Amino acid sequence: MRPKTPRKPGKDRPHHRPAGKPAPQKTAPAGRLPKPGRSENLIYGLHAVQAALANPRRKVGRALLTPRAAETIGERLLARVRVETMDPDAIGKLLPPGAVHQGAALEAQPLPPLDLGEVIEKAPQGKRRIVLVLDQISDPHNVGAILRTAAAFGVTAVVVQDRNAPPQSGALAKAASGALDIIPYIEVVNIARALDQLSERGFWRIALAGDGEQTIAEAAPSGDVALVLGSEGSGIRRLVREHCEAAAFIPIGQEMESLNVSNAAAIALYELRR
Amino acid sequence: MRPKTPRKPGKDRPHHRPAGKPAPQKTAPAGRLPKPGRSENLIYGLHAVQAALANPRRKVGRALLTPRAAETIGERLLARVRVETMDPDAIGKLLPPGAVHQGAALEAQPLPPLDLGEVIEKAPQGKRRIVLVLDQISDPHNVGAILRTAAAFGVTAVVVQDRNAPPQSGALAKAASGALDIIPYIEVVNIARALDQLSERGFWRIALAGDGEQTIAEAAPSGDVALVLGSEGSGIRRLVREHCEAAAFIPIGQEMESLNVSNAAAIALYELRR
Repeated sequence: MRPKTPRKPGKDRPHHRPAGKPAPQKTAPAGRLPKPGRSENLIYGLHAVQAALANPRRKVGRALLTPRAAETIGERLLARVRVETMDPDAIGKLLPPGAVHQGAALEAQPLPPLDLGEVIEKAPQGKRRIVLVLDQISDPHNVGAILRTAAAFGVTAVVVQDRNAPPQSGALAKAASGALDIIPYIEVVNIARALDQLSERGFWRIALAGDGEQTIAEAAPSGDVALVLGSEGSGIRRLVREHCEAAAFIPIGQEMESLNVSNAAAIALYELRR
Repeated sequence: MRPKTPRKPGKDRPHHRPAGKPAPQKTAPAGRLPKPGRSENLIYGLHAVQAALANPRRKVGRALLTPRAAETIGERLLARVRVETMDPDAIGKLLPPGAVHQGAALEAQPLPPLDLGEVIEKAPQGKRRIVLVLDQISDPHNVGAILRTAAAFGVTAVVVQDRNAPPQSGALAKAASGALDIIPYIEVVNIARALDQLSERGFWRIALAGDGEQTIAEAAPSGDVALVLGSEGSGIRRLVREHCEAAAFIPIGQEMESLNVSNAAAIALYELRR
């Protein structure tokens, strides 16, 4: 069904905030646009904005949309926000240079923090549970792409260290293509302690590393798995690796030293789900 | 072996251009740095610069390096270029904002064009040959990551349409992490004609598409394969898809509509090489 063209935003759309309902929490003073460069709390890209609007846990401010993007997103999802119609260039000026926003940006607060133990308890049984643990992967495009693929393969949670994780917005949210609002993304203080928690719950901990002693297929024939990925520069830290039962590699040729980390994650998840 | 610290570049390094050897072809007038924004012919990032220097087919100009990057790259590779030592910020100013250059940039001309037929004839036999065909994938990060993974899995060639391909430098070369100088990257006028050429040489042509009728594992149990990938927005064009024998999908859950195209390519290549 083709969504109806949303009416013009502004004073003539009082139904966007029904009487008696409190004003939605905002990240910038009412009526003022965030300044250029103050893009920490903006999510952009059609899929990312749609997923944030569809997530009841996500607190959102205004949606800054081209008329066409507003039409694509549809009235149902837009009912919970104030819409400001803008041209693409005006949206672009609020975002980092080169951001591919597809005519859609949304003021959005980071999601409330999640507890790893609770998320695992609530995870549906039936197929093997997989938790991805990212050790100091700071590139938001890589983390976003990993979230997207993790959601596609039904991963239970993605765990990162709070100090080194990229902000939960902007480039990460765009690359995640909505997955940030679909898959539990858990920031922890201490990765090694999180791995211990996972072990106590029966997860087999595998470090993905070029010098691993077996292939990813051999390392995890069955059962719940915590898969640890390190940064491309420095790999998995020694202490973190010592908290794993096994180290596994993806078989590749001599021509390249390694794979891009999100490509490696994709292959490992595909193999674990085969 | 740790490479020796390279001597300071400039007049005191006449051995950088041996007497009797013609001056290396340059992309900017001698002695002048390219202007900020004129970064079309600059390759950056340690792996990308190293691979370009190691490729005898690559015509290069000056290398703009931090002392540390020069040490990492080593004298052997740097013997063929003029080195200008710069601080990281000065290198960054010559590149697009946010470019992760790791202290290394290189003036480099695009590689001479290759002929698909010749590349296939010369490809080593023994294991199945795989050619990746990218239909209108324009994002340089994705194309670069695909090249990197293709090189890792011993792909025979990556084919793109010349009109829509991103420039063979900058972000593409960085994401490719050197693969641009390792794997044949072939720009063709007409993708459908290239697929016909591949078919005549016995390649089984598979379109990777979410609505494919079989999994990638089922679609290609053996033999030489041409794997076609489309852009994330618009997918594979109808005419191109009609030039394929089969359409195959990667099994993913309901949560996400699709995978990032470089992640999808990685999984498909892993499956084809298993």
